Amino acid sequence: MTTKTERKEPMSDTPNKAPTVNARISPRGGLDILSRDEVARLADASAGGQTELLRRCALAVLTSGTDSDDPRAAAQRFPDFGIEVHQQDRGIKIELRNAPAEAFVDGEIIRGIAENLFAVVRDLVYNANEIAGSGRIDLATGTGMTEAVFEILRNARVMKSYLEPNLVVCWGGHSIGREEYLYTKKVGYELGLRGLDICTGCGPGAMKGPMKGATIAHAKQRHWKPRYIGITEPGIIAAESPNPIVNHLVIMPDIEKRLEAFVRLGHGIVVFPGGVGTAEEILYMLGLLLHPANAGLPFPLVLTGPKDSAAYFEQIDQFLRLALGEEATSRYQIIVDDPVAVARAMRAGLKKVQSHRLDEKDAFFFNWSLHIPFEFQQPFVPNHHAMASLNLHREQPLHLLAADLRRAFSGIVAGNVKEEGMREIERHGPFRIDGDKDIMRALDALLRAFVEQRRMKIAGTYEPCYQVVG
Amino acid sequence: MTTKTERKEPMSDTPNKAPTVNARISPRGGLDILSRDEVARLADASAGGQTELLRRCALAVLTSGTDSDDPRAAAQRFPDFGIEVHQQDRGIKIELRNAPAEAFVDGEIIRGIAENLFAVVRDLVYNANEIAGSGRIDLATGTGMTEAVFEILRNARVMKSYLEPNLVVCWGGHSIGREEYLYTKKVGYELGLRGLDICTGCGPGAMKGPMKGATIAHAKQRHWKPRYIGITEPGIIAAESPNPIVNHLVIMPDIEKRLEAFVRLGHGIVVFPGGVGTAEEILYMLGLLLHPANAGLPFPLVLTGPKDSAAYFEQIDQFLRLALGEEATSRYQIIVDDPVAVARAMRAGLKKVQSHRLDEKDAFFFNWSLHIPFEFQQPFVPNHHAMASLNLHREQPLHLLAADLRRAFSGIVAGNVKEEGMREIERHGPFRIDGDKDIMRALDALLRAFVEQRRMKIAGTYEPCYQVVG
Amino acid sequence: MTTKTERKEPMSDTPNKAPTVNARISPRGGLDILSRDEVARLADASAGGQTELLRRCALAVLTSGTDSDDPRAAAQRFPDFGIEVHQQDRGIKIELRNAPAEAFVDGEIIRGIAENLFAVVRDLVYNANEIAGSGRIDLATGTGMTEAVFEILRNARVMKSYLEPNLVVCWGGHSIGREEYLYTKKVGYELGLRGLDICTGCGPGAMKGPMKGATIAHAKQRHWKPRYIGITEPGIIAAESPNPIVNHLVIMPDIEKRLEAFVRLGHGIVVFPGGVGTAEEILYMLGLLLHPANAGLPFPLVLTGPKDSAAYFEQIDQFLRLALGEEATSRYQIIVDDPVAVARAMRAGLKKVQSHRLDEKDAFFFNWSLHIPFEFQQPFVPNHHAMASLNLHREQPLHLLAADLRRAFSGIVAGNVKEEGMREIERHGPFRIDGDKDIMRALDALLRAFVEQRRMKIAGTYEPCYQVVG
Amino acid sequence: MTTKTERKEPMSDTPNKAPTVNARISPRGGLDILSRDEVARLADASAGGQTELLRRCALAVLTSGTDSDDPRAAAQRFPDFGIEVHQQDRGIKIELRNAPAEAFVDGEIIRGIAENLFAVVRDLVYNANEIAGSGRIDLATGTGMTEAVFEILRNARVMKSYLEPNLVVCWGGHSIGREEYLYTKKVGYELGLRGLDICTGCGPGAMKGPMKGATIAHAKQRHWKPRYIGITEPGIIAAESPNPIVNHLVIMPDIEKRLEAFVRLGHGIVVFPGGVGTAEEILYMLGLLLHPANAGLPFPLVLTGPKDSAAYFEQIDQFLRLALGEEATSRYQIIVDDPVAVARAMRAGLKKVQSHRLDEKDAFFFNWSLHIPFEFQQPFVPNHHAMASLNLHREQPLHLLAADLRRAFSGIVAGNVKEEGMREIERHGPFRIDGDKDIMRALDALLRAFVEQRRMKIAGTYEPCYQVVG
Repeated sequence: MTTKTERKEPMSDTPNKAPTVNARISPRGGLDILSRDEVARLADASAGGQTELLRRCALAVLTSGTDSDDPRAAAQRFPDFGIEVHQQDRGIKIELRNAPAEAFVDGEIIRGIAENLFAVVRDLVYNANEIAGSGRIDLATGTGMTEAVFEILRNARVMKSYLEPNLVVCWGGHSIGREEYLYTKKVGYELGLRGLDICTGCGPGAMKGPMKGATIAHAKQRHWKPRYIGITEPGIIAAESPNPIVNHLVIMPDIEKRLEAFVRLGHGIVVFPGGVGTAEEILYMLGLLLHPANAGLPFPLVLTGPKDSAAYFEQIDQFLRLALGEEATSRYQIIVDDPVAVARAMRAGLKKVQSHRLDEKDAFFFNWSLHIPFEFQQPFVPNHHAMASLNLHREQPLHLLAADLRRAFSGIVAGNVKEEGMREIERHGPFRIDGDKDIMRALDALLRAFVEQRRMKIAGTYEPCYQVVG
Repeated sequence: MTTKTERKEPMSDTPNKAPTVNARISPRGGLDILSRDEVARLADASAGGQTELLRRCALAVLTSGTDSDDPRAAAQRFPDFGIEVHQQDRGIKIELRNAPAEAFVDGEIIRGIAENLFAVVRDLVYNANEIAGSGRIDLATGTGMTEAVFEILRNARVMKSYLEPNLVVCWGGHSIGREEYLYTKKVGYELGLRGLDICTGCGPGAMKGPMKGATIAHAKQRHWKPRYIGITEPGIIAAESPNPIVNHLVIMPDIEKRLEAFVRLGHGIVVFPGGVGTAEEILYMLGLLLHPANAGLPFPLVLTGPKDSAAYFEQIDQFLRLALGEEATSRYQIIVDDPVAVARAMRAGLKKVQSHRLDEKDAFFFNWSLHIPFEFQQPFVPNHHAMASLNLHREQPLHLLAADLRRAFSGIVAGNVKEEGMREIERHGPFRIDGDKDIMRALDALLRAFVEQRRMKIAGTYEPCYQVVG
Repeated sequence: MTTKTERKEPMSDTPNKAPTVNARISPRGGLDILSRDEVARLADASAGGQTELLRRCALAVLTSGTDSDDPRAAAQRFPDFGIEVHQQDRGIKIELRNAPAEAFVDGEIIRGIAENLFAVVRDLVYNANEIAGSGRIDLATGTGMTEAVFEILRNARVMKSYLEPNLVVCWGGHSIGREEYLYTKKVGYELGLRGLDICTGCGPGAMKGPMKGATIAHAKQRHWKPRYIGITEPGIIAAESPNPIVNHLVIMPDIEKRLEAFVRLGHGIVVFPGGVGTAEEILYMLGLLLHPANAGLPFPLVLTGPKDSAAYFEQIDQFLRLALGEEATSRYQIIVDDPVAVARAMRAGLKKVQSHRLDEKDAFFFNWSLHIPFEFQQPFVPNHHAMASLNLHREQPLHLLAADLRRAFSGIVAGNVKEEGMREIERHGPFRIDGDKDIMRALDALLRAFVEQRRMKIAGTYEPCYQVVG
Repeated sequence: MTTKTERKEPMSDTPNKAPTVNARISPRGGLDILSRDEVARLADASAGGQTELLRRCALAVLTSGTDSDDPRAAAQRFPDFGIEVHQQDRGIKIELRNAPAEAFVDGEIIRGIAENLFAVVRDLVYNANEIAGSGRIDLATGTGMTEAVFEILRNARVMKSYLEPNLVVCWGGHSIGREEYLYTKKVGYELGLRGLDICTGCGPGAMKGPMKGATIAHAKQRHWKPRYIGITEPGIIAAESPNPIVNHLVIMPDIEKRLEAFVRLGHGIVVFPGGVGTAEEILYMLGLLLHPANAGLPFPLVLTGPKDSAAYFEQIDQFLRLALGEEATSRYQIIVDDPVAVARAMRAGLKKVQSHRLDEKDAFFFNWSLHIPFEFQQPFVPNHHAMASLNLHREQPLHLLAADLRRAFSGIVAGNVKEEGMREIERHGPFRIDGDKDIMRALDALLRAFVEQRRMKIAGTYEPCYQVVG
């Protein structure tokens, strides 16, 4: 896909606003062979119900160079920004008004940003028209949701049938410290030296470092057509805008499908230090891997960070051992301060994945064999009722405990830091949770440690937002 | 798409049967990224209701080297032929049993044939699942039918947004004489020298000659990635099997959609001598071009043949002038025995098409602007009632007269030579047609000329199967 | 390499001359990165001593569509043709005056012809400046001559290190009958179906048929980047102009280096019926293969023709058996009227070549291991002294007898049909040859058979131009 | 070019030595079509007179990740390192013994390093056999030297005829401070965003920063096939080993040809802060640009650095104004702390270069029009006699004064810091220079400023090594 900026206006220099540009951009590639009807629907969608969603996602892409993780920052800096999809000439054009000048170089939009802009249009319209709106897919079933994930990824052309398993998903915080950031670059560099491609959730920090490191390594290894895949969703894209190194951007409809996309598309996962969200992701992954149906399934999972971040994973490790038992530790590996070891472990793990897929005659490009229980696919809305219904006792299968722990975690996080959750707590008092006491205590200790390590943005003394029943 | 013949068995040498081969073939390309569900549906379709259809189309592709135009010949020569689509390894495999050995070279299937085999599977399943069966497209409307044509062509990846208008559709008989065949090769050669791509209806004769000629010319001009597009439909593929030079094979669901695909995809049309079917195609095309909505639309249409075939087009020309008036002649050009002039006329016409599309901001890859009235899209089933309802009088818009003439033509052909039509005539007597006498007479004269020129397979004296009312 | 025709003039329509065009053509590719000095030398060469040579070779390329094999025909049809190489813009331009219009399509030169035109310039200048004129290569030694052959081929970029042995050299007459021509097409088609590339000596007949057949087969097999190599030399290019299908044209400095290029570059040889020249080539090849140093070297050599041409190879076979003994027959295979068998034999032979090269750690792209004695590399000038010095007795190594037989053959041919040779005979009487009587008789019978089969252009009764001594 | 490590041995773990690897590497690409003779010469050269040179250069490439700028460091760390070129299989192999393990990833050599290793072999042998040893080029003339530069660059395939002028040469110190290094990355990033390719002299610091910055920008802009050209020479490669981002490495025979390669190949020059060497390069460039023959020749030259480095260019600017007059300042531009302005100035300058080349019909890929006087091509050996012969007075053409200033500069540098030069001064006292007093004073001030800024490695108080005569 290449783009042309056809019309440009001089940057505005109003003192209070950031400089902006008007431009028209035309795609080549994925959005080039459209029916007249599709073009019309694209234009409609961009002018109708999805206007605000499109505007928000587009702005995130256009401000991708910014380091701010404040989702409202971009909206405030570019209050007059507008985007419209026009049916014109032999296809569509995107019209940008008062767009951030930082996305342009001497009046020409940066090509990677333009590609990602078209990815946004492509996915929002596909999600609206083909997934949610078509009636073809039954989104009330697990199979239907997996099908939706598959079709969105295929429509985005990120799956390549000719590639061997080489896609490493990198998770971790987007507002990590300098030392941790440099460490993610080094790990990305070592992964890149071994010909591995990178997939992250977009945004700065642990989402950007591995891609930058891999870019240099891929250049040294003359890696042909490296993939830097960014998977995001409308709720977080504003806060975690996609770095333009990302050359395959996919917007999934919601958090659960984004998580499923990560684990079906990726062949292995590296987790860097992060906030509570990262801890939640670890629990999601372990919940899957501890499910009996996935017992024999190889899936390399490495937790790693620099020396000074060792504490983070020690605490997580302790919590996992206590809550899920020693068995859980067989599904992950903690490597401290050794990027080469991480890359080697990942490469070795991917080889096992490849053998397994060959044995099972399964595709390389999509992890069909991974069983994802329906509960992991359904969105979890944390409120007092949902939290009270959780079962955090040990008398149940491990993966169910893991699933509910993840939800508890998700709810506690919401109660602590999310606007909606905090309001709930203020109104109705702390969440009531039914769980084993030692698990509750360990959870509490973990969260307090995050606060101490400044991984949670909490002012004042930490007030638990939950209370253990039973 | 490349293919592998994984298992081969020695050719059978039963005296009465043609030599055969068993093989397994795996695709790469269009059919490589499939969901598990799609693979299952493919396998189901090939084992269920579409088995016989798939078998027949596949056999046509596998016997594409044969010159016979007898649709039953292949079926008789390969009575034990079987095809199954299997879900296996990381995708699908096609299993062939007792397949024609002529499609293989030393045990390896000819790559072009394998590609066309996968095109057959792709299109039959797409037509069944996505077009007819999905409910997404309203096939009862003209817009819906056009959308179906567009989606089938897009799914087959024959539209290329980066190409300028260069696709010449060649129509004409598949059982023409040697001299006429050599002439179609020469015209194809001259078109190819000018960088033009070729689209035909598959099969031998005028469908194969232009492609062979163009192949040599493209080699001389180092034409990068030439397109040899074959558009067929299940009803005729057995009689007109696709030459393996065809590198884009598309199976449309029925004759009307096949005709629409020709005129929406192609940028100009060359008509060689043919039988009555060819005459019918000319009337179809003229019916469209004489519609007021298409008045300003450039669409080069050249009728051409060698010196000794001049009579064919003279008679058609006379008939058109008489029936549709002198105005009709403004939309076509007759060139006798001059391949260079044909190619130059076509090139000049394509330039006008290109200017027009640019002016109208219309796509190069699909002729959205061409108005195709609903009557031209609906299948016409010739029986006594339908024939009696035709209006072949001059007191009506020209394009409607052309449309009904085409139908009359179609019915007369059926009554003369098609099994079903002949039975109808035997049972109920000749069709009764309501038309101007001079038009009827001209039609009669034309058909008699075809008989004399041996362009119709009629034994004994010619008995008209119709009778003019009024 | 692409070309542009920058300036065109209307075709001249002088009644007695063929239509012509003036044009300027600029290269891209091999001749694009030249030093200022090289550009100057190119221009000098084209204006100086090599003008006439360049003019003659260029005219051959520009009239490549013509079927005439009369070397003077083109010169007579285009008496005012001129070619100049200019230093201009960022490189060179070729200026053509009164060039054959048949090489152009609507004012644009056929791209394949333009490429071959630049190949002519490239090779003539390279041969003059780098091979003959540089002093770098000692052309008085066998090693030096082989080095020259290698460097000319490398400079022409016909050797590809990534290709497995797949190059079949086709020899045979350029003025063969229709049936024989169609047979060469069929063989080319079967070779092409098996992924084999074709190398011939340029010109019509057996030089063109295999390439045309292979082109169709390569299209069917989607053969990526097929090679159609034409190897010629200034003395014959006028009579055997390169078909534009040839996409790698090489002009060797003389006949001996052309023969060496064939056997070092090609991996196997197919010989079709031809005139005496073809018989001479067979003797050249057998002379090499019977040399003790080449005893273990695999080199598939197949003599083949249609049914009615069987006599040709029978007579050659008889002669070879009688003259060289049964042993000689182990190095070639005669296949009558079976293109598939020819292609299979060739493919099987190439596999042996490949194994052998791998075992010997020899290159695939150049047959270093083939020993070519110095006598086969030196030009043979047939006159009374040279002919009298030949030793056609059996008391010597077989390969030496073969070498002198080839020379005798060459001389007899010259005495019979070549202008210079016939003059010699008129002046000094018949050549005197010292040889075994039965060999001489067999030679005589062979030549008479050629006359009867109209493979030699001799008017009146055949008068032997030699006389056996001893 | 790809490489295979065929044989690996476990890393040695001798306590005092760095870990090493043994490996065999085979090329693909430039060195793949070699004659048997060439392979033998390569093997000979690597075993004969050029062994030590090859060993030194190869070690530099293999330790390219190291930051040390001590030329002897690598030699001391890998005392047992050996390299041999073997004739084997179908070409050559490079055999490495006790090679730095840091060039390998899990036993496989980093592909970029392997490519550069083959570049070293290619150039050393080409320089020895084709340039110095062939007798084809008269290296005693200016034309001959330019021809040598051209042929070495062409043999290295760095010139691309299809590219518009987009190559920016970056000069500057290799041991610059952190802030200056980050600034070079930013400038490289802005150049890369504008699609410009980078050429440097290899090594760390200002040679590496621009390439790293451009790599990220090129990834964002999806720049297809970026060029990172490194031009070095045997005398400095050990101290400034080529970063593996360099994807076109060229080894010129000596410093003067390296400088000529920079200015003939590059289309513009950016100079970052550096040591005295950088100052000398500025004088070289200005010497050329002030020559009357180059008066009308556009050649963008930008001197730039971060804010805190402004002093460096101020002093150089002052010196140039005083010594060469205000006129000299018209040929360069100083930009402080503004990477975007640098990139824009460079892009604007390149557009002028492009127009000029089009007007003059000159090549884009080699600056033929730039006049380089013979004195700038000849090596300057600084000793008392040569220094005394310099003419640093104003009564002469500006470019001659610039040329002798460059030499004076070179000599003073040698007398201050180079081993041989310092010995000369100890033995024979300070150099005596005949020059205008104010110029001498300014030179002195400049050098003292460099000492203060720690750009020269001088211990103790600065003792001038020269003395002004007259």
